[in-house]
Amino acid sequence: MKFIHTSDWHLGRQFHNVSLLNDQQAVLEQLIEYIRNNPVDAVIVAGDIYDRSVPPTAAIELLNWVITQICETLATPMIFISGNHDGAQRLGFGANQMKNAGLHIISNFDDMLTPVVITTKQAGEVAFYGMPYNDPEQVRHAFNKPVASHDEAHQLLADTILTHHHAAYSQRADQPIPKTVLISHCFVDGAIESDSERPLSIGGSDRVSHQHFTGFDYVALGHLHQPQQKGETYIRYSGSLMKYSFGEQHQQKGVTLVTLDEQGFASATHIGFSAPHQMRIIEGELEAIIEAGRTDPCPDDYLLVRLHDQHAILNPMEKLREVYPNVLHLEKPGMLIGIEQDMARARLARGEAEMFSDFFKEAQGSELTQDQHQAMQRIIGQLTGHPADNAD
Amino acid sequence: MKFIHTSDWHLGRQFHNVSLLNDQQAVLEQLIEYIRNNPVDAVIVAGDIYDRSVPPTAAIELLNWVITQICETLATPMIFISGNHDGAQRLGFGANQMKNAGLHIISNFDDMLTPVVITTKQAGEVAFYGMPYNDPEQVRHAFNKPVASHDEAHQLLADTILTHHHAAYSQRADQPIPKTVLISHCFVDGAIESDSERPLSIGGSDRVSHQHFTGFDYVALGHLHQPQQKGETYIRYSGSLMKYSFGEQHQQKGVTLVTLDEQGFASATHIGFSAPHQMRIIEGELEAIIEAGRTDPCPDDYLLVRLHDQHAILNPMEKLREVYPNVLHLEKPGMLIGIEQDMARARLARGEAEMFSDFFKEAQGSELTQDQHQAMQRIIGQLTGHPADNAD
Repeated sequence: MKFIHTSDWHLGRQFHNVSLLNDQQAVLEQLIEYIRNNPVDAVIVAGDIYDRSVPPTAAIELLNWVITQICETLATPMIFISGNHDGAQRLGFGANQMKNAGLHIISNFDDMLTPVVITTKQAGEVAFYGMPYNDPEQVRHAFNKPVASHDEAHQLLADTILTHHHAAYSQRADQPIPKTVLISHCFVDGAIESDSERPLSIGGSDRVSHQHFTGFDYVALGHLHQPQQKGETYIRYSGSLMKYSFGEQHQQKGVTLVTLDEQGFASATHIGFSAPHQMRIIEGELEAIIEAGRTDPCPDDYLLVRLHDQHAILNPMEKLREVYPNVLHLEKPGMLIGIEQDMARARLARGEAEMFSDFFKEAQGSELTQDQHQAMQRIIGQLTGHPADNAD
Repeated sequence: MKFIHTSDWHLGRQFHNVSLLNDQQAVLEQLIEYIRNNPVDAVIVAGDIYDRSVPPTAAIELLNWVITQICETLATPMIFISGNHDGAQRLGFGANQMKNAGLHIISNFDDMLTPVVITTKQAGEVAFYGMPYNDPEQVRHAFNKPVASHDEAHQLLADTILTHHHAAYSQRADQPIPKTVLISHCFVDGAIESDSERPLSIGGSDRVSHQHFTGFDYVALGHLHQPQQKGETYIRYSGSLMKYSFGEQHQQKGVTLVTLDEQGFASATHIGFSAPHQMRIIEGELEAIIEAGRTDPCPDDYLLVRLHDQHAILNPMEKLREVYPNVLHLEKPGMLIGIEQDMARARLARGEAEMFSDFFKEAQGSELTQDQHQAMQRIIGQLTGHPADNAD
């Protein structure tokens, strides 16, 4: 059997005040097109479907379109769990009513113990269990057990699911116990973080051992935005739908195609998708960046520009946006280095004439002439009551 | 065939900063219990299911519980349209996926032309058409027709539905054209308003003629909170689920039980429900109200109290709430009359001793003794430099 494991869509996310919805739609269209050409038995979304508990209307409409395409047009069942960004109750509205249409939204502990069972020739019955995002307090309250950490909570939930699974299926005569896939939204200890994740708790107490998950045939994880496996080849993060921070510029985003066979886990393959606007960091001096930008094949990418220039520049954003319209953030480490190296004091100590000379060059694009320079010195002398400091 | 027509649930509504959710749940439990004992073929909710486009989570959970009870446990189909308070796209999420489970949410013009057809022995096929709440601009945009008013918009939509209905069904051999029920959320001209409705537009241009609706066998209306018929016996408002303003204190709230037979509309009956806390207005003088309140069988009702007392009263709300804990609003028309009749000037002209005497009586519950009175006069005399004005 084949299924797609994806997570962290974060529909409705803003990035430096720019809506990413069109990019998200473009990537989801690639996903739909992939499934149309390469049918799968299920699509799993391991949480953070929306970016916030009350998503914008346009994000709801996009998700509505996606589920209609995948569940109805392509007749492929989908299984969602709620993540830490989702509003579980809000996401779970109508979940019971949608099951028959092939949309399974698991957002509470009651539904956690009822697997979605999908049967194929290759792998027989496979039971998909979704563990909605949870924190220790919720687990303590729901199960009335002393649970102090995310780790203990996930151990309890994984054990509860497996115990329940074996009890439910072990008494059937002549039929093997179904294989198991766990869907969970958590931070597996030792896995790699990205800049765009929201911490589940402060101080590292959100880490969960992958050991709790080794009883399953495959574990489809969400929360971390970099695709990766952790502990075992069958315990994986698909990574986020697309890049959500400049720090992810070199990550390959997409979904994971998982195959199971009679023995259980068989393979996991990354299927790459790309958003229309990539997130990139460009570094260098302003003029060089603008010069190179004129032949950049992707000038519309979302950019962080790091200027290495060490002198003040008038309206750098405006200048950059003439070639790169989507510069979203500007850093000036050159200026910072200057300050750190006591250049700042030197700069402050510069005289009015020198500062005006810099300003004139920036504003006009040319140097002061000798006459202009002398005229400015006279004016400064009259205004300040002492001759201009710079007599070059 | 029998169906229930209800509307204007306004789940999540606040009333004078009090959540009405528990009352709404109690009334919905009565509805569910009614259906359990008196099975019907469908439940129609004619808009304003939620009170706002982004309803609170608890309101979503309540609705989720209701649909599970009615659609699943009682296997009774439900048909919703969006009202002016609902967020149509938000309410419509997953609508396609929920149809097979018997939950039909009609929140856009595309779905408006696809009826929910329910067949019974008594009435044969009945096609339920839902007209989501709309304003003229939306209709103009969606149908590319010059539509200037709510009236013209509803005429166009009703005609479009009926034309579509006859075209779709008239060519079937041997089978009669199904009967039609229209569900709409609008203000039918001449119908009675209540205080708790939000105007659809300013200045009366929201009125719609009932004449546009006469081609249907029954018209299930929402928006107006008073149960009423308008124009024809088969064009009706069910009224809101419960009272949402003190002005509705004498309205009978509930749902409408509609029966159709082979000839079409047969009957409409009001089924009354009541919320645990009624909304009532109590008028009179403070002491009389408190006295009567001690034997009031429903002291927990939500109250507006109108005090007829014409003198200042210390902490009247506190005193009232000792017997009526849910006094939500206090009016003092007696004081206003006083002011209007120039009593205010007289009151301001009263001397310090008299005002203190009033205050003491309010605060202590007893009159000043003769000695206390004289002591106060001395003190006032010393403080003001002239003898107290009131020498009685």
